[in-house]
Amino acid sequence: METIIAASRNADKIREIEAITERFGMKVISRDDAGLPKDEVEENGTTFEENSYIKAKAIWDISHKTTIADDSGLEVEYLDGAPGLYSARFAGDDCNYARNNEKLLSLMEGVPYEDRKARFVTVITMIFEDGEVLVARGECYGHIAEKTLGEGGFGYDPVFVPDGYEESFAEMGTDAKNRISHRAKALERLTELLSERK
Amino acid sequence: METIIAASRNADKIREIEAITERFGMKVISRDDAGLPKDEVEENGTTFEENSYIKAKAIWDISHKTTIADDSGLEVEYLDGAPGLYSARFAGDDCNYARNNEKLLSLMEGVPYEDRKARFVTVITMIFEDGEVLVARGECYGHIAEKTLGEGGFGYDPVFVPDGYEESFAEMGTDAKNRISHRAKALERLTELLSERK
Repeated sequence: METIIAASRNADKIREIEAITERFGMKVISRDDAGLPKDEVEENGTTFEENSYIKAKAIWDISHKTTIADDSGLEVEYLDGAPGLYSARFAGDDCNYARNNEKLLSLMEGVPYEDRKARFVTVITMIFEDGEVLVARGECYGHIAEKTLGEGGFGYDPVFVPDGYEESFAEMGTDAKNRISHRAKALERLTELLSERK
Repeated sequence: METIIAASRNADKIREIEAITERFGMKVISRDDAGLPKDEVEENGTTFEENSYIKAKAIWDISHKTTIADDSGLEVEYLDGAPGLYSARFAGDDCNYARNNEKLLSLMEGVPYEDRKARFVTVITMIFEDGEVLVARGECYGHIAEKTLGEGGFGYDPVFVPDGYEESFAEMGTDAKNRISHRAKALERLTELLSERK
């Protein structure tokens, strides 16, 4: 069985990826379990694609094994795509989920519903031993709520209401969210790309 | 009609790409026709994927339009994948097709048939306006001949005999080559990726 090294240390993410890749005879282990150095890589790309590639490539460079990494963020149309690549660190050095949401809501204060369009994006990059690359993008469109809604999920989930729903990601429960999320769509796309691989 | 900017200046390549993309309503123009600066980009990647990405990204960075680039090379198993990324400049500073082939043949002198396995690889990277990336890899397997065969084609074509054939790429004629080549396969893959794009 082929082993894939995940750039992530997040066990939930690794399980989620493995649910897909095991259908293709691939087992996923974390970079720590692979015994790789713990050096942090600088995510200095200008797109989600580039950052997920940078993370996967850093592991590939030291292992030359099949590797996988992801990058995600929230893009708000009215803010020209911000927080985007800076989603995790939007409120600055001492940021956390609550402060990021607070900053976003204050920037959107008074902005009418039709100008509150946003999308969540996830990009997964997989690099095979021989250098072949698969890039799977998933997007989920919606709008920014006027206040935080719900306690579930994480990140911007409490302020993001997906199209076709009246609840935020934080209100709708993990199972419902995981059926329609950007991450689910990226994993679906990865499944397609893996099945069609020559 | 959406316009794609090609990193290449080669009119044949651009025509070949456009034959595919026009089915998807996209027109291809060269970077020069797009009026972009003529700065050369350093291809310092360690894989074909990375180099084709670097070329496409350089154009995307200055245009933020949909861009496309490719990178190709020959990998010889007995030489641990050389000439690989260095295919075009294998014989050094004053290299040309003839000198590259000469160097390759001399390195392979006396190596028996079963150890002369090689593959041509082409990778095409397309970056869309919003950062989405498609990566299409095409490979063509074969072996290295004992001497140059034929006058057609270019590059390593005279020393590469594709599996299932007894003629080199340089002997078989452009039409036959273009049906089975690494480049044809990468373009086929690009067609699939474009049709399945959400």
